[in-house]
Amino acid sequence: MNIRSNPDTTLPAVTTGPLPSSRKIFATPDAAPDLRVPLREIILSEGAGEPNLPVYDTSGPYTDPTVTIDVNAGLSRNRLAWVKERGGVEEYQGREIKPEDNGNVGASHAAKAFTAHHKPLRGLDGHKITQLEFARAGIITKEMIYVAERENLGRKQQLERAEAALADGESFGAEVPAFITPEFVRSEIARGRAIIPCNINHAELEPMIIGRNFLTKINANIGNSAVTSSVEEEVDKMVWAIRWGADTVMDLSTGRNIHTTREWILRNAPIPIGTVPIYQALEKCEGDPVKLTWELYKDTLIEQCEQGVDYFTIHAGVRLPYIHLTANRVTGIVSRGGSIMAKWCLAHHKESFLYTHFDEICDLMRKYDVSFSLGDGLRPGSIADANDRAQFAELETLGELTKIAWEKGCQVMIEGPGHVPMHKIKINMDKQLKECGEAPFYTLGPLTTDIAPGYDHITSGIGAAMIGWFGCAMLCYVTPKEHLGLPDRNDVKVGVITYKIAAHASDLAKGHPAAQLRDDALSRARFDFRWTDQFNLGLDPDTAKSFHDETLPKEAHKVA
Amino acid sequence: MNIRSNPDTTLPAVTTGPLPSSRKIFATPDAAPDLRVPLREIILSEGAGEPNLPVYDTSGPYTDPTVTIDVNAGLSRNRLAWVKERGGVEEYQGREIKPEDNGNVGASHAAKAFTAHHKPLRGLDGHKITQLEFARAGIITKEMIYVAERENLGRKQQLERAEAALADGESFGAEVPAFITPEFVRSEIARGRAIIPCNINHAELEPMIIGRNFLTKINANIGNSAVTSSVEEEVDKMVWAIRWGADTVMDLSTGRNIHTTREWILRNAPIPIGTVPIYQALEKCEGDPVKLTWELYKDTLIEQCEQGVDYFTIHAGVRLPYIHLTANRVTGIVSRGGSIMAKWCLAHHKESFLYTHFDEICDLMRKYDVSFSLGDGLRPGSIADANDRAQFAELETLGELTKIAWEKGCQVMIEGPGHVPMHKIKINMDKQLKECGEAPFYTLGPLTTDIAPGYDHITSGIGAAMIGWFGCAMLCYVTPKEHLGLPDRNDVKVGVITYKIAAHASDLAKGHPAAQLRDDALSRARFDFRWTDQFNLGLDPDTAKSFHDETLPKEAHKVA
Repeated sequence: MNIRSNPDTTLPAVTTGPLPSSRKIFATPDAAPDLRVPLREIILSEGAGEPNLPVYDTSGPYTDPTVTIDVNAGLSRNRLAWVKERGGVEEYQGREIKPEDNGNVGASHAAKAFTAHHKPLRGLDGHKITQLEFARAGIITKEMIYVAERENLGRKQQLERAEAALADGESFGAEVPAFITPEFVRSEIARGRAIIPCNINHAELEPMIIGRNFLTKINANIGNSAVTSSVEEEVDKMVWAIRWGADTVMDLSTGRNIHTTREWILRNAPIPIGTVPIYQALEKCEGDPVKLTWELYKDTLIEQCEQGVDYFTIHAGVRLPYIHLTANRVTGIVSRGGSIMAKWCLAHHKESFLYTHFDEICDLMRKYDVSFSLGDGLRPGSIADANDRAQFAELETLGELTKIAWEKGCQVMIEGPGHVPMHKIKINMDKQLKECGEAPFYTLGPLTTDIAPGYDHITSGIGAAMIGWFGCAMLCYVTPKEHLGLPDRNDVKVGVITYKIAAHASDLAKGHPAAQLRDDALSRARFDFRWTDQFNLGLDPDTAKSFHDETLPKEAHKVA
Repeated sequence: MNIRSNPDTTLPAVTTGPLPSSRKIFATPDAAPDLRVPLREIILSEGAGEPNLPVYDTSGPYTDPTVTIDVNAGLSRNRLAWVKERGGVEEYQGREIKPEDNGNVGASHAAKAFTAHHKPLRGLDGHKITQLEFARAGIITKEMIYVAERENLGRKQQLERAEAALADGESFGAEVPAFITPEFVRSEIARGRAIIPCNINHAELEPMIIGRNFLTKINANIGNSAVTSSVEEEVDKMVWAIRWGADTVMDLSTGRNIHTTREWILRNAPIPIGTVPIYQALEKCEGDPVKLTWELYKDTLIEQCEQGVDYFTIHAGVRLPYIHLTANRVTGIVSRGGSIMAKWCLAHHKESFLYTHFDEICDLMRKYDVSFSLGDGLRPGSIADANDRAQFAELETLGELTKIAWEKGCQVMIEGPGHVPMHKIKINMDKQLKECGEAPFYTLGPLTTDIAPGYDHITSGIGAAMIGWFGCAMLCYVTPKEHLGLPDRNDVKVGVITYKIAAHASDLAKGHPAAQLRDDALSRARFDFRWTDQFNLGLDPDTAKSFHDETLPKEAHKVA
């Protein structure tokens, strides 16, 4: 059932209700019986002769028929208690919303403000705030217990086949365990090999983990632009993206109503939300990169920290001396954040303020446990520019910054390309692991050819599957509209499903101990001609069902 | 312009007219100035500041506005002269069409017969007939000259960048040259590393080559079933598939009108047509595999040899002793041809007649230069069954049969899986090269996960790109309808475009000396905001253009 809520009001209408033949179930971790970790159980047909299949569930309360969704009120803020009970934080008045936060939008174009206001929390000096700090101190947080349970997909113990699956896979040096314990989660976070993006002000969050020894994750980008789409559409796209499996969502909104849009999204988001704060900072200086200042940027960071953004893309590796390295490229600098910073550096002939103020950025983000997603502002925008000196010089700097952020107690992941032909993908992964001390890699695609505008979910899905296999922890989706326009609802779904395929193919190849259970269940359904089970076990039951040709003969000779 | 011909008649209506901003051009080989080798020139906008781009053109006369397409008459039979002038063939009466050839269809359901009748040719004893025989004798045929010119994409000499591109790539031991000469083509065919599928009776053919030292090719499957689609639809699908880039087409028709459908397709096909003759043989014995006989099969082979089919899938590796190896599989035998033969073997408890009569099959196919596509009847139908003993036992037998076919003078390629997780793909390629003496590999996907029915063009496109990179010579497309229904026109297009992406990504990764020219041209157009050039240089200009959001701001900060 795809039920669109609030059909008759002007409030955001979002899709609710379970997926076909699925129900929300909850696992209770032994280490914290008060936690309820969501799973989706796919219910098989009566004659299936095998148990229902629990799968990872990113969809939040929207697919739980026992929860009344009111987008106007936001999701319940369960995580507030977790943060408060461990202490070290204070509630405070918070920064006042300024007209420029919403692009000085006039009353006639202003989006409806989110109703509730929650005073922000921030960390107190001398206290542990971030998951990294807790992990290093040997403390297992509720977030860690939660994600451990979640990663085990309902298993309470190691599967019989786990060791065999791991031995059969090729993980290129990853250390995926046969069973995930909270202690394993803690140790991976302590080493910097995994992060739980979880701003203390994002109390609506159902925590998830990003690291190469866990299930491969995917991100979906949404965001309005100055000219198209609305707050309603963006909230709906977020809910739609997580319905199909997005693990995190980045709000890349530009233009007016940027603060309000983000507030609506965050208050209704059970998944981590990432942003690129320089986009909003730029809106605050009329879109002129030259006018950007550290103070303006810092104020924007505080604004977004208080709202509850879970991770920030920060292009602090776009250093002045690297910019000339892009001079002979076919496609110059294609990262929006990268080109903004390059313009600022060149205009002022100064080192990037993101780089010179990196310590301060760390101190600020640490107070809210906002994770770094160190941006690759010099990523290649074409096959021709892949793996060039500009790209790798920046990556080396990102490695240097990773170590600083870690020293400051911040969680870190690293963003990667872009456009890379197949034979140059692995070197990206290997170099990232080496330069960045195994901090999680989070890549856009990469696109393996430039010749298919309109199909870049596919050109990039190929690269994404491969880099996920090689060790990339999170894959940022690309939709069919890449390079051409903003994705609509259908593009979001196609992008998410394509990247779920890539992520799952990665998990299979790495030898994940439980990934193949779903393939096997679906294959058995196929072999038995249990059509409905085959649809429901797939990533997109609706499409599979609509494609099924009832007139097709049963093909007595085809034994599957 | 997508112009559908014959809109007002009951004859097959097919799409004609050039692709957007493209024109058909012809290259003239120095070695044979009477040949006209087609290319598509993509015409760039006036201010582009760079030359138009010639690309490989599979579309045949359908995109040539100077040719009047009359599907009822078929394409012109230029190649007849090439075959006749080298001699060694005789024209003869040929086998009479029998009612059972069309499933004993009654008059009311009979498809309109193709108008023209061409007496078949066959090779005379003691004469060279096949491209392999000519190649071994040191003779360069017109077909070899034609494909050499075609592979060079309009280049008359080695590109300056060719050596650098090759050095930059990773081809896993392939020996792609900087420039293709007719002599290189001859030597590759003589070694069995490449084939030109070209039945002497397929005079409408524009020859193409399949081998890992040439451009990676793709195949599209079409074919009616007993219950759906018509002759008209299948001819249209063939024309539609080659319009978007299919290099060969397999007609997998079943049911009634199977002979007539194939005749319409062949007489209008500028690309090689492949079939699985056992499908038709089965129709001739009421669909009961147990009733199959060698005589019935042989008669079907002759029927199809005379019609001009260029390659036959023959599942001669499904041997009686291998069948029990599939007993514990999750999805048994999923190849239709494989399961037909398995049933025959088990019912009679006899070795497969395809295996026991393999010599005779070779002798027959040699007379018409029909190439073998040795079928993988025991290919895995699920991730669980990948790379198992049944699969590899059959592959070893295919290697043995390859050598027999070569001795007999026949051209050979080998079919491959199927469903294979990423980390098990390369072993398939390596083992195939080893067992089959580097005969070209021709694989279905492989699908890298089973969990996405409705999206298996993508699950398999990932595997196809990888195996193409590793050395697979031709990739058999999978459409979104795989496992669910018969592909319609739109599915055919999506499947073809997806596989063009995979094939091109393979060529890039191998370091093909000219593949990246198109990526670079498109990337420059993108960087210059030459939108129309960007669309036209892409694989699907129509879709790219329709996706382009005119309202999108030019994003002054994004330098691409």
